[in-house]
Amino acid sequence: MSQAVYPQKEFNKVNRYKHQATYDVETIHSIVNDTPVLHVSFVPDPAIPAPIVLPMIGQLGLYPGDNDKGETDWKCYLHGYVSSRLMTLAADAVNRGEEGLPLCVAATKVDGFVLSLTPNSHNYNYRSAVLQGFGSIVEDASEKLWAMELVTNSVVPERYDNTRVPPDGAEMQSTRILKMKITGASGKVRQGVPADERKDMKREDILDSVWTGVVPVYEKLGVPQPGPYNRIWEVPEHVKTFVSLENEKREQYAVEAANKPAPLKRPKKADDS
Amino acid sequence: MSQAVYPQKEFNKVNRYKHQATYDVETIHSIVNDTPVLHVSFVPDPAIPAPIVLPMIGQLGLYPGDNDKGETDWKCYLHGYVSSRLMTLAADAVNRGEEGLPLCVAATKVDGFVLSLTPNSHNYNYRSAVLQGFGSIVEDASEKLWAMELVTNSVVPERYDNTRVPPDGAEMQSTRILKMKITGASGKVRQGVPADERKDMKREDILDSVWTGVVPVYEKLGVPQPGPYNRIWEVPEHVKTFVSLENEKREQYAVEAANKPAPLKRPKKADDS
Repeated sequence: MSQAVYPQKEFNKVNRYKHQATYDVETIHSIVNDTPVLHVSFVPDPAIPAPIVLPMIGQLGLYPGDNDKGETDWKCYLHGYVSSRLMTLAADAVNRGEEGLPLCVAATKVDGFVLSLTPNSHNYNYRSAVLQGFGSIVEDASEKLWAMELVTNSVVPERYDNTRVPPDGAEMQSTRILKMKITGASGKVRQGVPADERKDMKREDILDSVWTGVVPVYEKLGVPQPGPYNRIWEVPEHVKTFVSLENEKREQYAVEAANKPAPLKRPKKADDS
Repeated sequence: MSQAVYPQKEFNKVNRYKHQATYDVETIHSIVNDTPVLHVSFVPDPAIPAPIVLPMIGQLGLYPGDNDKGETDWKCYLHGYVSSRLMTLAADAVNRGEEGLPLCVAATKVDGFVLSLTPNSHNYNYRSAVLQGFGSIVEDASEKLWAMELVTNSVVPERYDNTRVPPDGAEMQSTRILKMKITGASGKVRQGVPADERKDMKREDILDSVWTGVVPVYEKLGVPQPGPYNRIWEVPEHVKTFVSLENEKREQYAVEAANKPAPLKRPKKADDS
């Protein structure tokens, strides 16, 4: 990675809850790469300021061929199931000599429901990242293959090599991958116990009647269900290990986040103690 | 609800995987209302076709005051933690005499990882919904209160009445709710076992070596963690019941989806049997 933090510019500056904001490249990349669905927005018609947002599968990574050319910034690779319209718009933008189609990508993970004394101080524990940049279609066959492997292994590690590969000519042709150059990015992370206002913390009647705490939330992977034409009677190691390690890791993160100190709302003043 | 299906117009027509598409109002509403984070996109500057997408909390519902006026279409209420910019843009649009700020909202739930013979036929079981429309700020105090209760109870049912309510003047003033009138909506649902191409289904070597099946995925609610100033030693009924019922329901949905027949890729032909 070329940089430790994404630059703070006007368009990606987080204006609310600044203390929860991060521009750390590693944090932002890990949020995006741990999220099974990214939400990708674009404007279909430049004459009308109405966006579309669609769910897609994607991963951040640095293609070795780009690295060889001296590139060090990671790109976001998006798998093009959803919208051939998006792909056409990206191709059109490049054909017009532009950098690509303006895109915004969001990744969000909910880690817990924070239940406090009043509705207003309710919150989520969460991690979110927003990327801005320009998307273009991957034309180079070896970069496309590399991205297909990256995206497949993001669902289940090592899955690619445990399937029938490489993709044949028809599969290569029918798959389209969007590559997003990132011009700005920001992230937000909330962890911790509930935090209430002083006015409610002074009220014995409320403290005596409202349960406060966090319900941890995490994406659970269930028992693998063999399909109707499966002939392998034991769930293979790459699936079994992934399911058990992930479940342990995810539950641990959510429970630990639920028990951390609450983030500070503002710098402490003398009369705040 | 005034309508059983959302109308199919050019802008919300699903062009890929049409057999998985739905315009059913009840299906779309339940996907949105079961999703803890919605992804909301808008265009900050009409002169530049670059969108922003942000995570927000939201719910679809019909305000009784609107119903009294003969309105029957549900609106999407979005809680304005994230972006005061979004709120300002919505207010500006209304002040200019427009219907509101053009918005697009996506809700997506991953229900399983579908692991098939080749990377190309890998898939997710999922439910997704996309809404398009116009957002404006809720000004009416009783509608705002109603929406605050709707949104709070979407996190944990009955939570609102189990906290210190009603919000006081300062809380009412600091909370902003966006109300989105829906002009178009579509949904997509994939359930079922893996589905591979005939070319791979004929290959004994592949069928003998690749495990195929579905890893069910669902959002698990962990053991409620009491916070540092909690005084209620037993987790209250509205939290306990919610956690256990939801976990049962969510796991059941994901496992059932994993075992349903695969969706058809195309209408069956005589030579397809």
